[in-house]
Amino acid sequence: MRGETGQDVPCSPAPAYTRAAYFVSDSTGITAETLGSALLANFPGVDFQRHTIPFVDSVAGARNVVRDIQSASEDGTDPIVFATVKSASILHEFDVSGAVVIDLLGGHLRELEATLGSTASEQLGQFHGLGDIEHYFARMRAVEYAIEHDDGQSERALDIADVILIAPSRCGKTPTTMYLALQYGLLVANYPLTDDDFPSDGLPRTVTRFASKCFGLTTTPLRLSQVRHERRPNSTYSSLAQCTLELRRAEDLYRRNRVPFLNSSTKSVEEMSAVIMQSMRLRS
Amino acid sequence: MRGETGQDVPCSPAPAYTRAAYFVSDSTGITAETLGSALLANFPGVDFQRHTIPFVDSVAGARNVVRDIQSASEDGTDPIVFATVKSASILHEFDVSGAVVIDLLGGHLRELEATLGSTASEQLGQFHGLGDIEHYFARMRAVEYAIEHDDGQSERALDIADVILIAPSRCGKTPTTMYLALQYGLLVANYPLTDDDFPSDGLPRTVTRFASKCFGLTTTPLRLSQVRHERRPNSTYSSLAQCTLELRRAEDLYRRNRVPFLNSSTKSVEEMSAVIMQSMRLRS
Repeated sequence: MRGETGQDVPCSPAPAYTRAAYFVSDSTGITAETLGSALLANFPGVDFQRHTIPFVDSVAGARNVVRDIQSASEDGTDPIVFATVKSASILHEFDVSGAVVIDLLGGHLRELEATLGSTASEQLGQFHGLGDIEHYFARMRAVEYAIEHDDGQSERALDIADVILIAPSRCGKTPTTMYLALQYGLLVANYPLTDDDFPSDGLPRTVTRFASKCFGLTTTPLRLSQVRHERRPNSTYSSLAQCTLELRRAEDLYRRNRVPFLNSSTKSVEEMSAVIMQSMRLRS
Repeated sequence: MRGETGQDVPCSPAPAYTRAAYFVSDSTGITAETLGSALLANFPGVDFQRHTIPFVDSVAGARNVVRDIQSASEDGTDPIVFATVKSASILHEFDVSGAVVIDLLGGHLRELEATLGSTASEQLGQFHGLGDIEHYFARMRAVEYAIEHDDGQSERALDIADVILIAPSRCGKTPTTMYLALQYGLLVANYPLTDDDFPSDGLPRTVTRFASKCFGLTTTPLRLSQVRHERRPNSTYSSLAQCTLELRRAEDLYRRNRVPFLNSSTKSVEEMSAVIMQSMRLRS
């Protein structure tokens, strides 16, 4: 079973050596971690030992981190520090420590200052702050809506849904729903396609009125069988025959009803969300 | 009510002018959007018109985007393009278009090549790819676990939880739970503190055995009253007196039982998650 998935993942050469990589931030560290990891992914030959250190917002705090980093690096190679730290004096502590500092903000701020003709404000930690409180409420409401409408549990207020994801069991509806809700504040319901839905040519009764909001997911039979096997090993539900049948019926249903759909087998939740938002014109 | 929250959000001067900002990516656009927005937050005097354009992975695609950008920019100012695009030829299309291009990857890749002594591989779109399939399964499982255990709905398998969030209703348990599950694959249950839990000095019965996994949330009475008012206006539940009482009791309970806790009133879901992971030593 793993063979099928294995084909999607390119084989990397065995890492030649290890190197410490630190994601250091005066806020949550999420941006440093995300962009730093994206950059490191380009060097598959190195085994990076990763550490995220959030909330480094004082020179004293930076000195503590530098001390920890130095005592941890025993093999003589300089650690790499990806920094999203706004204060020049905090950043300076890392610069003089001997680490290779990749400053993910500073250079770009200078570029922006040049084009905007103004100076960057010096408000620490506003990057991931509460920000727009209405947006925050929208995300909270969206997560609650997603939980209420997970797996077809509720028919309430489907008319205000931004998207209704439909798919057979275990095609990735739930994580995609949660990501769209939490990241973008979108109201997303999801609805399972079961054998009951297939005798007819139309969409399931509950979502018929909202066909234009529907987006379908599919996957490959082998992948679906693998994922279902995790839940119910050696069952009809997880058999390759059943998975093949359900996916073929689901794709037929999407095509007959002009429901856009995508194959989730080689896509991350983030990628699926981006495709769905683009397809449903939910992104500015 | 809005006054209290209003105090948390610094007043910005009225934007002096508008400027178009594009987040362009050969993958989902999430990194470009996150870091680009973080950078733009330093220029509160400008009203940025933001657009995210994912999956720009060919020169032809880039030319289409450039055409759209140019036809949209009628006021004579050059748009700002934040790019996470690996291909030099794709990036070149934006460079020659007259836009101000902030290349979020290229410069840093050169820095890494210099320190690592090797050349970045040229695999397009691997940044947000399926990546480690085990990690993907872990996230899916974590989201399902979070839904099952939302709001104290299930007592099953609490022993395998990484964290159990406890708090009075509407302090931010659910979005924080979902974020930890989806972003980090952590198993997070959450449990409401109700009036029933307060006559005793101990933790609620269900979580007593797992005290070391518990993390508490609190907020300010005014903020809680505001949030509850959204759900049930003019009720005892949303009254300032009731909110004050419940929060005081909850904080007493956290202190008595040595449960670490934080105040969610001025923190984003991302910030709360980072604090919780650091406090519970769930991050490398």
